[in-house]
Amino acid sequence: MTPSAAPLFSPRGSAHEIEEGQLFAPKFDAAGLITCVVTDAVTGALLMVAHMDAQALERTVSTGEVWFYSRSRQALWKKGESSGHVLSVAEMRVDCDQDVLWLQVRQSAAGACHTGRQSCFYRAVVRQGPGAPLTLAFRDDERVFDPAKVYGGS
Amino acid sequence: MTPSAAPLFSPRGSAHEIEEGQLFAPKFDAAGLITCVVTDAVTGALLMVAHMDAQALERTVSTGEVWFYSRSRQALWKKGESSGHVLSVAEMRVDCDQDVLWLQVRQSAAGACHTGRQSCFYRAVVRQGPGAPLTLAFRDDERVFDPAKVYGGS
Repeated sequence: MTPSAAPLFSPRGSAHEIEEGQLFAPKFDAAGLITCVVTDAVTGALLMVAHMDAQALERTVSTGEVWFYSRSRQALWKKGESSGHVLSVAEMRVDCDQDVLWLQVRQSAAGACHTGRQSCFYRAVVRQGPGAPLTLAFRDDERVFDPAKVYGGS
Repeated sequence: MTPSAAPLFSPRGSAHEIEEGQLFAPKFDAAGLITCVVTDAVTGALLMVAHMDAQALERTVSTGEVWFYSRSRQALWKKGESSGHVLSVAEMRVDCDQDVLWLQVRQSAAGACHTGRQSCFYRAVVRQGPGAPLTLAFRDDERVFDPAKVYGGS
């Protein structure tokens, strides 16, 4: 799973070992990915959810900066490589069955979402009435940077 | 995708419509699931991450209580159906590309994790030194309920 000389991850053990043990034995899915929840270490705000493969996780651990695997681009991706909005890991946690990571991060610049918002979660799901299709209401949707300028595109 | 008479969800549109629009067009993965991040609406704490299929999402919306799809049991699952620790939705949000839901919930009883902890994220990933395997350090790991009593088993 990992190209490093000494393996960073331990093999998956029993359910008890996975849930109550002290070995880090992350479960990657069939595509080799693990889900990562990213929150702001200072404010606690939920910023984004993305995925890591073993290599992204290894780079994140070794550099202290956040790397992901982009499913759309099918490539290793350093968060902030285009925008400069790099994320540093304050603490990484894992959930009970070790198939989700929680990254508490410090942001080098405001705006974790590629749309220019602080967070990717800028819309609430609302129901107008029984039987009506669900719609979205904007919340906390102020742009903190201009994506056209930051990414140099449209 | 949904058995209801009137569809709750809108079809996926262009990237711009998905990111900047007001139609709820959730993206379910190849297995028909969408990832859900669950936080405590009062404290903001990250409690758990789970998945919904279209039916679980529909029941959650129609009842205001949280339903998931259990991948291990391959079944619709009302959170708290065994433990009584039901979650009520205070607000639901969706991320920019509409493939992750964020549920801010009110807990009917303490302890969202089946291990008896408040949160599933009770261990930090730590590195003892360069090249050393990653290990886990317990944090916020006090049990707030006894899973043996609540689930009636070991």
